[in-house]
Amino acid sequence: MFHDYEKRIDFFVGYPVESPILENLFSEFAGLSEDHMKQINVGIIGFGTVGAGTYEVLTTNREIITNRVGARVVVRRIADLDIETDRGVPEKPDPEVFTTNAMDVILDPEIDVVVELMGGLDKAREFILKAMESGKHVITANKALLAEFGWEIYREAERCGVTLAFEASVGGGIPIIGALKTGLSGNRIQSCMGILNGTSNYILTKMARENLSFETAVEAAVALGFAEDPPTLDVDGTDAAHKLAIMMSIAFGGAIDFDQVFREGIVAITPDDIRFAREFGYHIKLLAIAKDLGNKLEARVHPVMIPKNHILANVHEAFNAIFLEGDFVGPTLYYGLGAGRKPTGSAVVSDIISLARDLVAEKRGMVPPLGHVHPSETAISIQPMDELITSYYFRVSALDTPGVLSTISGILAQKGISIYSVIQKGRDRKGSVPIVMLTHEARESEVREAIRLIDDLDVVTDKTVVIRVEGNNL
Amino acid sequence: MFHDYEKRIDFFVGYPVESPILENLFSEFAGLSEDHMKQINVGIIGFGTVGAGTYEVLTTNREIITNRVGARVVVRRIADLDIETDRGVPEKPDPEVFTTNAMDVILDPEIDVVVELMGGLDKAREFILKAMESGKHVITANKALLAEFGWEIYREAERCGVTLAFEASVGGGIPIIGALKTGLSGNRIQSCMGILNGTSNYILTKMARENLSFETAVEAAVALGFAEDPPTLDVDGTDAAHKLAIMMSIAFGGAIDFDQVFREGIVAITPDDIRFAREFGYHIKLLAIAKDLGNKLEARVHPVMIPKNHILANVHEAFNAIFLEGDFVGPTLYYGLGAGRKPTGSAVVSDIISLARDLVAEKRGMVPPLGHVHPSETAISIQPMDELITSYYFRVSALDTPGVLSTISGILAQKGISIYSVIQKGRDRKGSVPIVMLTHEARESEVREAIRLIDDLDVVTDKTVVIRVEGNNL
Repeated sequence: MFHDYEKRIDFFVGYPVESPILENLFSEFAGLSEDHMKQINVGIIGFGTVGAGTYEVLTTNREIITNRVGARVVVRRIADLDIETDRGVPEKPDPEVFTTNAMDVILDPEIDVVVELMGGLDKAREFILKAMESGKHVITANKALLAEFGWEIYREAERCGVTLAFEASVGGGIPIIGALKTGLSGNRIQSCMGILNGTSNYILTKMARENLSFETAVEAAVALGFAEDPPTLDVDGTDAAHKLAIMMSIAFGGAIDFDQVFREGIVAITPDDIRFAREFGYHIKLLAIAKDLGNKLEARVHPVMIPKNHILANVHEAFNAIFLEGDFVGPTLYYGLGAGRKPTGSAVVSDIISLARDLVAEKRGMVPPLGHVHPSETAISIQPMDELITSYYFRVSALDTPGVLSTISGILAQKGISIYSVIQKGRDRKGSVPIVMLTHEARESEVREAIRLIDDLDVVTDKTVVIRVEGNNL
Repeated sequence: MFHDYEKRIDFFVGYPVESPILENLFSEFAGLSEDHMKQINVGIIGFGTVGAGTYEVLTTNREIITNRVGARVVVRRIADLDIETDRGVPEKPDPEVFTTNAMDVILDPEIDVVVELMGGLDKAREFILKAMESGKHVITANKALLAEFGWEIYREAERCGVTLAFEASVGGGIPIIGALKTGLSGNRIQSCMGILNGTSNYILTKMARENLSFETAVEAAVALGFAEDPPTLDVDGTDAAHKLAIMMSIAFGGAIDFDQVFREGIVAITPDDIRFAREFGYHIKLLAIAKDLGNKLEARVHPVMIPKNHILANVHEAFNAIFLEGDFVGPTLYYGLGAGRKPTGSAVVSDIISLARDLVAEKRGMVPPLGHVHPSETAISIQPMDELITSYYFRVSALDTPGVLSTISGILAQKGISIYSVIQKGRDRKGSVPIVMLTHEARESEVREAIRLIDDLDVVTDKTVVIRVEGNNL
């Protein structure tokens, strides 16, 4: 599958070397000009945002990458249904590189690595499985596919003896898959908490800084290109849950039943809640949380109140961050841009480089996709949400009549929920007052029951807002 | 070099499986009991803090590691001059494992990987070179050795065709070497800024939170075991500079002349400076900074004032963090515990696992130590400190007489240094007043010259404190 590198002088022509640092590298290469350098051929399926970003990284940093791999990495074919639109990459691919038929990539005997960047489920799954069957190594950024149908793909990669890599599927440019698979591989992972959706984080940041409603912040995010219109999978927690499920498979070494990952979006968050959170010393973030409870896992995505001095509380705008705790390493954090053409292209290319290094080193076996030789195929047991124990924030909207607080706190006491702190503010225009509380740790099922009883009270004028607290115990 | 795994049932006896998750893994292994599992033999030289931590990770998480590698990882020999002291590891090594002679590790034909954790320069260098010559792969945490004599070792590893890995040499448990070598490998690294010395960061945090002098904070740190007594290499910037030099070799792909890395410690920082910094909206941190200026690099370690909303400003106590910027990935941050038995053990074991995976996969070639096939052997050009351009903080101690501010600002104007902001506070007990300023960007040589002139003034009662500003331009 390797191709001698015959025209190495030509290769450098047209890429002006501006930096003395690069000049050093260049002169080292020059010393090698008699050698035949290997070539790794890549085929890309899907030339949208991420596909174009990947191509841009590979061409812009061609010399650096050649030196990091010890071989040329060449994009031999690009498949996309739309090969007419100009993707704005600085170096245009040769027209002959393009095809509208993905099978031209998958079946090309010269191609070593197939990079699936088309997205979607059915077609992407089909192409990936066909590529692996044809002996191609596969790189993908397809988080939905891996979260929902990953198991079949992981297994097939092992059966075919090919590498499957997916650094770009979680956290955009942040090398979090590498950290889990390699960097922390000596640890039992105890917990994993992440701001995994840049769109939601941007919207929450905008709401907090400019005191905007959710709807207005979404409009601003759409206008600025930080959100799709409508950004449903981003704001309802699904996208973050996909990424969480992928990380969990690696961290805990087994299949995750995606439907068991609890998800709740940020649609119900108001500027009032953000303000009250701040009064209590918290920020509101959409977090994806997995914890090893010993005999089962917590797996949930929802808005949380997190102490404002927690490092995750200080991740703003479209940034992502993942907070991982291991039994030896302790707490660690990884932070960066979680989406976008360039960061995601960076992640895809890091997988291409790793794979190319393996090919250069003539590695005969493969590190399995999840980094475990025998991952648990039986889905790992996930704790039902009713059993969650955490602290809670409530915002009850009630008429400002005598005894309201007493009635509400009576219901909470009856359900064994202990109040940590209360704020009661003046009457709003509709004549109801917000009663805002933080609780000590309580059980989710009891909380839901208590809130049902509270919302049934005649004096309660609106649905109570419930936000879980994370990052400390009250 | 592989050893069949004959007694696999015995292997699990004595390690009670508590978690259903592990039970799943266990039952998967059980299904394999007919197989002969490979064994990777490790030899450790140096059984101090990090050596014992490494051993503890390997034994405590034996099952997880076996599953992540696909082979048993066994510590076959441990060499230390002191084999009597109990290192407090939960599972005691067999007495036969110990030797006082490092050559028993290096020359053992059964050993695949030599892990050098003794520290120091001459002996460690000798043992590493001998181990590589004997065909052993080498893992080390020895930052001083790699920063000062790394080049010879990198070259020798390549000549011998062995892997040299050193994740534990920078940032303790933070997988920063992996991020540089692999995760960001598609990027041209533009800058690298790190809080790389936990002791200094702990001292600065303590000074800031409790308004302590440097000396008192050091005493507290020593008493709590966060600092050696005296913590010279920690607080004078040398340790951070070692780590910076190692990261630079990977990021920029070439030799770094360690003597050209500028270093200045935190000894001169006072609680007054921390308080003034806060008034200007900054925190004071000891930062290690490398920047690619195109034709040369900045390489410097010194205290900086960093805007308090910068993510690095929020790294407190003994935590480390590294802020890396690449041309495609943009800004990224990696955060965790930078020292200590367990986090450093975690990093060493991540290298052992990577290496063991390569051995299992029968990889024939090696990824070179710096991740570059042809790193530049000519030392990369480093910008002389005189040429640095940045913003500055000055605290001038002057007699409270008319015209002082005018004289001082006149000198600054004469050197082309433009003032951004000034604070002048009331007289202190000695009769002198602090005049505190932030400047716009200026050239270091001009600043030094101006400060020399200012300190020569009769009205100036003490040496002016100069702190460079980082993280924004004024």
